[in-house]
Amino acid sequence: MTNTQVTLVQIDNYGPWTVTPEPRREVDLQTLQSRLYADLSQLIGNREGYTFFTRFDNMVTVTNGIDRDAHALIQESVANRYPVTVSLGVGVDPSPAVALGEATAAIQEGGSAQDASRQEILSGEFLSESDRTDDDVQIAHFDVNDATGKYTDQLNEFDTFIHIEQGYAALMRYMREQHDSLSFFVGGDNVIAVCPSLGEAEYQDAIEAVHERVEVELKVGVGRHRTAQGAGMAAKHALETCRDDGTDVEFA
Amino acid sequence: MTNTQVTLVQIDNYGPWTVTPEPRREVDLQTLQSRLYADLSQLIGNREGYTFFTRFDNMVTVTNGIDRDAHALIQESVANRYPVTVSLGVGVDPSPAVALGEATAAIQEGGSAQDASRQEILSGEFLSESDRTDDDVQIAHFDVNDATGKYTDQLNEFDTFIHIEQGYAALMRYMREQHDSLSFFVGGDNVIAVCPSLGEAEYQDAIEAVHERVEVELKVGVGRHRTAQGAGMAAKHALETCRDDGTDVEFA
Amino acid sequence: MTNTQVTLVQIDNYGPWTVTPEPRREVDLQTLQSRLYADLSQLIGNREGYTFFTRFDNMVTVTNGIDRDAHALIQESVANRYPVTVSLGVGVDPSPAVALGEATAAIQEGGSAQDASRQEILSGEFLSESDRTDDDVQIAHFDVNDATGKYTDQLNEFDTFIHIEQGYAALMRYMREQHDSLSFFVGGDNVIAVCPSLGEAEYQDAIEAVHERVEVELKVGVGRHRTAQGAGMAAKHALETCRDDGTDVEFA
Amino acid sequence: MTNTQVTLVQIDNYGPWTVTPEPRREVDLQTLQSRLYADLSQLIGNREGYTFFTRFDNMVTVTNGIDRDAHALIQESVANRYPVTVSLGVGVDPSPAVALGEATAAIQEGGSAQDASRQEILSGEFLSESDRTDDDVQIAHFDVNDATGKYTDQLNEFDTFIHIEQGYAALMRYMREQHDSLSFFVGGDNVIAVCPSLGEAEYQDAIEAVHERVEVELKVGVGRHRTAQGAGMAAKHALETCRDDGTDVEFA
Repeated sequence: MTNTQVTLVQIDNYGPWTVTPEPRREVDLQTLQSRLYADLSQLIGNREGYTFFTRFDNMVTVTNGIDRDAHALIQESVANRYPVTVSLGVGVDPSPAVALGEATAAIQEGGSAQDASRQEILSGEFLSESDRTDDDVQIAHFDVNDATGKYTDQLNEFDTFIHIEQGYAALMRYMREQHDSLSFFVGGDNVIAVCPSLGEAEYQDAIEAVHERVEVELKVGVGRHRTAQGAGMAAKHALETCRDDGTDVEFA
Repeated sequence: MTNTQVTLVQIDNYGPWTVTPEPRREVDLQTLQSRLYADLSQLIGNREGYTFFTRFDNMVTVTNGIDRDAHALIQESVANRYPVTVSLGVGVDPSPAVALGEATAAIQEGGSAQDASRQEILSGEFLSESDRTDDDVQIAHFDVNDATGKYTDQLNEFDTFIHIEQGYAALMRYMREQHDSLSFFVGGDNVIAVCPSLGEAEYQDAIEAVHERVEVELKVGVGRHRTAQGAGMAAKHALETCRDDGTDVEFA
Repeated sequence: MTNTQVTLVQIDNYGPWTVTPEPRREVDLQTLQSRLYADLSQLIGNREGYTFFTRFDNMVTVTNGIDRDAHALIQESVANRYPVTVSLGVGVDPSPAVALGEATAAIQEGGSAQDASRQEILSGEFLSESDRTDDDVQIAHFDVNDATGKYTDQLNEFDTFIHIEQGYAALMRYMREQHDSLSFFVGGDNVIAVCPSLGEAEYQDAIEAVHERVEVELKVGVGRHRTAQGAGMAAKHALETCRDDGTDVEFA
Repeated sequence: MTNTQVTLVQIDNYGPWTVTPEPRREVDLQTLQSRLYADLSQLIGNREGYTFFTRFDNMVTVTNGIDRDAHALIQESVANRYPVTVSLGVGVDPSPAVALGEATAAIQEGGSAQDASRQEILSGEFLSESDRTDDDVQIAHFDVNDATGKYTDQLNEFDTFIHIEQGYAALMRYMREQHDSLSFFVGGDNVIAVCPSLGEAEYQDAIEAVHERVEVELKVGVGRHRTAQGAGMAAKHALETCRDDGTDVEFA
């Protein structure tokens, strides 16, 4: 059984800030958002976690092995370097979707995302060190078969993007509804999914569902570890096996 | 009539690089990608252009007023600071989709995105200074009505994300197919579209189409200027008018 | 005759901020300072100017060709991305030291560097476009003869650093006192000086003075242009000529 | 007794790279250097270490508690994100100067700093976990008495900088020669010194020596811990005590 610790990072009162006293330049907002994402990737990645940009003002992270003190330090480090602060909600569950639900609730209970008086919440349940096992996190790394040959080198880049995007939209919805998994586009033709303990049949099934709905062909490598970093790297190696052997689903 | 100059930025041979000699750590790839995006946002934004992250390994930018020399300097600046290089293809057309088609072709003619010997292409057509007008770029800035109240403060963040994402997927496809426009998610509940010369009816129509298909309610501010920056800022102010007056479509 | 426009960038009320409510983590302060420096380097460098880190909370920049509006935009861009704001003072004079004096006074007149109510001053004199010439900026790029062979590859790195540092300390003082020039260490064994219209004799003289005082042997390339960027790049090429020909002073 | 683990970070073959095939734009070099410093600050700081920019192409870091694997990961992370690679030499000794000597030698033995074939050395002695104690690192944090009132708010910024710089030059030399300590300017009017086990008399003595030589008045807070981060934060709090009580030397 997996046991995923999920942390939701939410920028405090961000929407109002972006238009106060009048709309801020988009280039600065984009720079702020992408750098905050890069910094959180490093702050959490250096502690073996994974960060997904999601909507940028709300980022979903997998934080097995990262305790409350480390969360407080990450929160402080953001406040020391940015004009905005972040709230952190944490949840733990065999189902990543349930864990994120708890993490979200932990923040929502503190007030609205657009409540100016709600700042730097740090709340929720952490996975205790004694409850951790070597199988706590399962990560699946999907990519599109021959995306370069079929799309990037052939089509208008936006039409390539539409194919990739529709593939992602189908996959993220299917994996959420059928398999309690959280799937994130991570650039190029890559999607990383945080999953409960799924087997080969479920992944085969998801690949077929996406193919039927939007005609995009996927393959997937799956890894398992006590941290997101370990599971994710194992998944990448498994995906290389797919590439080498022409298979659709490989477990590390 | 609009006349949009679009530049496609493509990282050279990026896919193979990410797995050579073996898969690189995801946290480093994410950091590299998001910082390259932030840097291009600044390099292009300081020259009044707009940069969209798109797939991160391929980024679409609007570059009216940025000439060949400035493109060469941006290309050199990336090579001086990153372990990867970028190719730049440029196109100009009243239709942003056609302009991007030309920009993509300019790169594709130089070789595959995964051809190790193809490096730092700089090719395509630039809008000459004498042909520029004050109406060359039309930008539409969409957001979701009361996203915080209806989604962010109520749902599991992933379910909020699914709503936003499905709204975006429907909008980007509709605007591409019906109105030759390029629409990009830019974080939160915001989508920025680069458009030809569209009127209020077309935007009203797009908002209704998205509502019918995925039940997400949008509003939009529209701006026009000789640069992306000018058009985009006007669009933001128009969107504020929507917010203040409860309207769906406003032109600056 | 040169005519250098110098802008002093001063972080507002920074000292108190670093210890309020209690001392902030040094790693965050260092990250904030070095990134602000990198961002200003880019914001000013993309407009052909040069930025020197100086004391990090006070940075000296050469801004010929960068007008008041561009200064306001740079100031706004910092405020949009950092937890601190900056004041900008500007001065113009044939003597870089006098220009910096005016720039400093423009800020000092607005209040103390540690006055919490003094924020985002933008004040001083700008070089008007009609007064600009192709000779306005003179830059000298010094380095240490065979620093790698004599120091880096031989000594404890701190002892190498002491040699470089004492050479810099002697040079910056001599150039300030004798030649109204502002000299900045820029890493490695490199010093860049912003100078009035000096000739070969003055540079030969400075090199000898440093050699006598601290036994560090320098060479220098000198360039001249209407912008810092142009003069600095010419100086680098002249320094390459020194390297190739074994000479001490070269003008581009 | 202290037991400091020092790591020297040296960019491989950097000098030649900066001028190949011809001199690279200074703004890009400065951006590269300062961001590499910021990234190392975070990579090492997240593991409780301290990073000093020194000459930027050679950076001195205090790495107690950071083992060989973490060093390898930091080295890999730099290679994944920059156009340059770094070598790491490590040394351990009660005297920080001796430890840095060993760290430097570990790199020098692998070849010259300008040897194109020498890449990513990782060599030297690490402090084993079992040998670590709570007193291994001693950090002293100096600043200048009333620097804002006496200098920043009164003088031309370059003349302020000369005072601070001459104070630093005197202090770093004295502490190296008399007390085997490594002192680094960290911005503003602050100097951080990595020391062996010194007492109040030695610091009083250093403050007097600097005052005699260059008339700059310093005060200092001193901290001790098993990591640089812990010792440095304790030193900052001790320095606050100096500020509050008007004393010259305080131990945490």
